[in-house]
Amino acid sequence: MTEQTKFLLDESKLPQAWYNINADMPVPPQPVLHPGTLEPVTPDFLAVLFPMSLILQEISAERYIEIPEPVREVYKLWRPTPFLRARRLEMALDTPAHIYYKYEGASPVGSHKPNTAVPQAFYNKEAGTKALTTETGAGQWGSALAMACAFFGIDLEVYMVKESYHQKPYRRIMIESYGATIYPSPSNNTMYGRALLADNADAPGSLGIAISEAVEAAATSGGAKKYSLGSVLNHVLLHQTVIGQEALLQFEMADEYPDVIIGCTGGGSNFAGFTFPFIHKNLTEGKQTQVIAVEPAASPSLTKGIYTFDYGDTAQMAPVVKMHTLGHTFIPPGIHAGGLRYHGMSPQVSALVDAGHIEARAVKQLDTFAAALTFLRSEGIIPAPESTHAIKVAIDEALAAKESGQKRVIAFNLSGHGHFDMGAYESYLHGRLEDYEYPAEAVAEALQHLPDVS
Amino acid sequence: MTEQTKFLLDESKLPQAWYNINADMPVPPQPVLHPGTLEPVTPDFLAVLFPMSLILQEISAERYIEIPEPVREVYKLWRPTPFLRARRLEMALDTPAHIYYKYEGASPVGSHKPNTAVPQAFYNKEAGTKALTTETGAGQWGSALAMACAFFGIDLEVYMVKESYHQKPYRRIMIESYGATIYPSPSNNTMYGRALLADNADAPGSLGIAISEAVEAAATSGGAKKYSLGSVLNHVLLHQTVIGQEALLQFEMADEYPDVIIGCTGGGSNFAGFTFPFIHKNLTEGKQTQVIAVEPAASPSLTKGIYTFDYGDTAQMAPVVKMHTLGHTFIPPGIHAGGLRYHGMSPQVSALVDAGHIEARAVKQLDTFAAALTFLRSEGIIPAPESTHAIKVAIDEALAAKESGQKRVIAFNLSGHGHFDMGAYESYLHGRLEDYEYPAEAVAEALQHLPDVS
Repeated sequence: MTEQTKFLLDESKLPQAWYNINADMPVPPQPVLHPGTLEPVTPDFLAVLFPMSLILQEISAERYIEIPEPVREVYKLWRPTPFLRARRLEMALDTPAHIYYKYEGASPVGSHKPNTAVPQAFYNKEAGTKALTTETGAGQWGSALAMACAFFGIDLEVYMVKESYHQKPYRRIMIESYGATIYPSPSNNTMYGRALLADNADAPGSLGIAISEAVEAAATSGGAKKYSLGSVLNHVLLHQTVIGQEALLQFEMADEYPDVIIGCTGGGSNFAGFTFPFIHKNLTEGKQTQVIAVEPAASPSLTKGIYTFDYGDTAQMAPVVKMHTLGHTFIPPGIHAGGLRYHGMSPQVSALVDAGHIEARAVKQLDTFAAALTFLRSEGIIPAPESTHAIKVAIDEALAAKESGQKRVIAFNLSGHGHFDMGAYESYLHGRLEDYEYPAEAVAEALQHLPDVS
Repeated sequence: MTEQTKFLLDESKLPQAWYNINADMPVPPQPVLHPGTLEPVTPDFLAVLFPMSLILQEISAERYIEIPEPVREVYKLWRPTPFLRARRLEMALDTPAHIYYKYEGASPVGSHKPNTAVPQAFYNKEAGTKALTTETGAGQWGSALAMACAFFGIDLEVYMVKESYHQKPYRRIMIESYGATIYPSPSNNTMYGRALLADNADAPGSLGIAISEAVEAAATSGGAKKYSLGSVLNHVLLHQTVIGQEALLQFEMADEYPDVIIGCTGGGSNFAGFTFPFIHKNLTEGKQTQVIAVEPAASPSLTKGIYTFDYGDTAQMAPVVKMHTLGHTFIPPGIHAGGLRYHGMSPQVSALVDAGHIEARAVKQLDTFAAALTFLRSEGIIPAPESTHAIKVAIDEALAAKESGQKRVIAFNLSGHGHFDMGAYESYLHGRLEDYEYPAEAVAEALQHLPDVS
């Protein structure tokens, strides 16, 4: 054990540009549709929600988009992030595989989310935006955007899924500490929230509902507020590509190249951020790295959903995109990986799965926590429940390599730490954690309500 | 803002040796006394609790003690830690001062504690120890030692102050996740614990009591268990000097040298780890860096205590040392900085304060949280309540520099993140956080019970 463990990049190696996979997509992009007319949206419609600079990134075909210097200056607070060889895990598994991981939990809020929160706050500030609205599930996105808004002096209004608001108070307090205002969703702030509460005062909420409220709050503000989304959209995904670009440089330092790369997928942003720069090399340089997207068996859009047009939110206010979906009215079971509880998937990730460039696997909650314990007792870091999904498949791959006697190079993205999720670990350790079966009936029902796009 | 923000060291620059300030102490060391006889202890007495390698480090006069390779290999999971210039904080304060901080929250458990937990587990493993006992207050030390014991395959029994055990469940679960067993203290496991519970079944416990229980559990195990302490003792302090040694190299990268360095002090370990390598240069190379130890006004051993011999624990089972003490029966008020709630202080830190090489300041809880908000809204990282004490004085110094128009170079140790302490932030944000006055009467009473050392 005298070889190198940790590969650090100096801040001068921070990427100068984000990578936009639209430039290399092997299939033509599908239009984004207006939720009312189901016709292709005009920039005007999007301009109610987003500043023009982000809309242009959303539809850009440029391969590289320069990162503004003020954004790079903030990134330097924690980026480049560490890249480690998991030597102690390799020994614990007794595998000939080399296992690497990129650690995004090194950010101040403990996840990859600030990679896009910071540029979104910056571009809004540049466009004169005084206030933003957003939604958050477990709170990773809300806390990241709250930090970014504190840095750039923008007011922020967060709609947090009511169940998480009460069950995960620490993330809520974190959001408040950065100075944002937070409401449990459904709330009385919006027409949609009031309608839901009139129907059921104790409605627990969902991510789809919280998105609807945040969109409504911005869209009806008469221009006073814009809206910000933490995943799914192309401009979000491309901001995250700093992860994979750094990992490519760090693999060079390690003098290796991955045979297989793995990320967990909810809306797709940490997965895309880590893997797209490698997929770029697969598509344009003849590399043949296997790319695996790991989703929860309880919310398996890629492995059980339909690849079709659907709404991004429950109330049908967000744009309609072509993606793998379980139906916009589907509310995923209450797994602890709150960041993976979404009915849809990023259109770019969906298209690449459909075209065979990404493989998708679904894993069960109990298996992910078993993998997490193996990892944390070897490597120390307690992973977020979302990240445990990637770890589970990385360990599977390492054990398969042991079985076949192959030295495979495996890498995964450790998207965040689990210091806010110890309640989930307690349930697991004390045998109280449930495994959810695939909710086939609820999905079948939800898939009855897809928009009629001809 | 184009100058460097973050100074990273490659793992090849990880220190090869720990620095032992006993070699440079300007005053002769005071003997460690047996708690029963109040005569100087023999190694035999200490050998019941500690492996000989750690006892030899405790009394060593060697300036440098080589770090074993297996310990360095584990350190590389997160060390060297980042060193940052707080440019955004400087701008927020509009100060000509340059503010730097060393970030120990980058460890897997979020604090500096693994720096000594790992070598203590390693030396115990080498000596054949199968099981360790320890105490923990808020849980930073317990989680660090639990991780280290998981790495080296040692069983661990943690006595956690009962009030924290119930109020801070996340740290408790973290300790369990690494595989350790944890008991609320006072417990029924020890004679001392049973006696306290017989007196008051709802006794909330204290750090001094938990130390007594952990010491008793080891001392009465017939050699089956050793004991491990997370602060105060010299071998603990010297393990922490990796912090300051790295910071010295990182100051070279920044091409600056500090005018003033600041750390928070409870038992003294993070403070000593950060400052002793700089004090070495003050003592031996004519440097004149001002060194400030910051303690809570509610538990002010250095600024209000007596420099004399006292017991390290409540039940008078731990060795008696010469230190600044508020009396071993004093139980500090319930401030959120649980790691600073201790009646005594490291003998080395105490002697250096007494000899005028370290300046001590006491600060109030509300002021530390106000400073924390200023910091986190500029720099992103949410500091642990302990670390907020150092930040408060760093900001005071930066504002004094602004007042006097001096460009001072200020550095502090950010000993950990506050992701487990958001409850304290909630109380502060909602105006429910108390400020504790200096508990003069309780201290006066406790100081009646000092041992009679002639």
